Amino acid sequence: LDNRPIGVFDSGVGGLTAVRALQRLLPSENILYFGDSGRAPYGCRPVDEIRRIARQDSSFLAEKGVKALLVACGTMDSNALGDIVENVTVPVGGVVRPSAEAAAAATRNGRVGVLATAATARSGAFGRALAAARASLTVTAEGCPLLVPLIESGHGAADDPALGEALDEYLAPMQAAGVDTLLLGCTHFPLVSDAIAARMGPGVTLIDSGAEGARACARNLAEAGLLCGQERRGSSIYYTSGGTDAFARLSALFLDAGGAGPIRGVEPFRL
Amino acid sequence: LDNRPIGVFDSGVGGLTAVRALQRLLPSENILYFGDSGRAPYGCRPVDEIRRIARQDSSFLAEKGVKALLVACGTMDSNALGDIVENVTVPVGGVVRPSAEAAAAATRNGRVGVLATAATARSGAFGRALAAARASLTVTAEGCPLLVPLIESGHGAADDPALGEALDEYLAPMQAAGVDTLLLGCTHFPLVSDAIAARMGPGVTLIDSGAEGARACARNLAEAGLLCGQERRGSSIYYTSGGTDAFARLSALFLDAGGAGPIRGVEPFRL
Repeated sequence: LDNRPIGVFDSGVGGLTAVRALQRLLPSENILYFGDSGRAPYGCRPVDEIRRIARQDSSFLAEKGVKALLVACGTMDSNALGDIVENVTVPVGGVVRPSAEAAAAATRNGRVGVLATAATARSGAFGRALAAARASLTVTAEGCPLLVPLIESGHGAADDPALGEALDEYLAPMQAAGVDTLLLGCTHFPLVSDAIAARMGPGVTLIDSGAEGARACARNLAEAGLLCGQERRGSSIYYTSGGTDAFARLSALFLDAGGAGPIRGVEPFRL
Repeated sequence: LDNRPIGVFDSGVGGLTAVRALQRLLPSENILYFGDSGRAPYGCRPVDEIRRIARQDSSFLAEKGVKALLVACGTMDSNALGDIVENVTVPVGGVVRPSAEAAAAATRNGRVGVLATAATARSGAFGRALAAARASLTVTAEGCPLLVPLIESGHGAADDPALGEALDEYLAPMQAAGVDTLLLGCTHFPLVSDAIAARMGPGVTLIDSGAEGARACARNLAEAGLLCGQERRGSSIYYTSGGTDAFARLSALFLDAGGAGPIRGVEPFRL
């Protein structure tokens, strides 16, 4: 039994999809979240920068004494998981492998779609993880450079016309390929899952990479005997390198019980 | 007389609006262009990163022996012009002051709109430059975080629906304020000026910050006796830290005579 907090981080608010899932799965755990909104989005940065950012973000939480890290960011996980594992001494999990395994288990026709940021799509990480989870899947992957900027600039509502135009473009290859399972490979994307589901129809299963990452994290903690021993409800503390007001506003869209709190501002780390 | 090239740089292809204007104004000048597409867009980065990037980009061209620098990027100019001036020994000009002066001269009703990236809008640089150019202007400024991602991901066509949705949002405050002059404060935005003009109507003058920066650069070179002495047509060389193919394709939308050439790839500088 281990009462230290679980560390979760992402480029911004997207990783809160994983936090919400963790809070539901393991309500007595304490959580430290870091959302690097002051440097978001990561998806348009070169790999060299993503890897250095990964070390900085993971060090920030490791130094606060977490017992495990959940990399709740598809861009980080697919480009820099090895750097993070090397950088900290606690167990590290991500979102790519758990969600690829969930998608491989969910598909009936063997056709899986992946929506991700440009950097994640370029990395090919989801394709490799899907192939490792189950041979002979047909994978259709699409880089979606506009979705994070749209969501983070307030265009995440299901009926937002600009969001609709972007989704129509990104989903057309998924529909053409006949996927029955669509992996949301960026933890921001569940925020627009209603708009995606409306376009893909009820026959398509959406896989939430943040929630799958949280499930795998919970499983790994249990197996390692690292779950906390307290009976009372755990507390969560949120750090952001962007504005705390904007973080509070966006977090309310992701989290139960009206959003995040307490939220603490930190200066963006110098690359 | 001075036959060294003029250096021009931007986060990506946007600064080519200034290059085209320079090539038309001063056809015998040689030009070195650097488009930092491998690290674009700059507009979502923290100011600290923008300032360090400004030093790297300006050093790259200064070391190639340019006689003057044109900072053809509203984000750079508004956040880091002082760093660039400090960093190089040649004359440096930007786009903010020249285009603010052009807008102040063009407006009849004293109401000027500014469209810029998020970082430029936050800096307030255009507002200060407009106030310096002419007191008692009413300025309506809008940060437009989606326009560069839209343009750079292939959504720049005048009839593009996603572009249209974003422009409708960004132009509504301009129409409500009754501006008669609209300053395109990011050198990417002239690429979508047809779509902007169609929405604003013929009574509104659009100011192209890249072209105004080029005009001021030509004026300053002439006054300093730094124009080149050759009679033949000058040559332009283009460097990009992104893919050369993507740069070639996008450049054709900006430049006369079918686009840029020769284009040379360089590795993105390490921040």
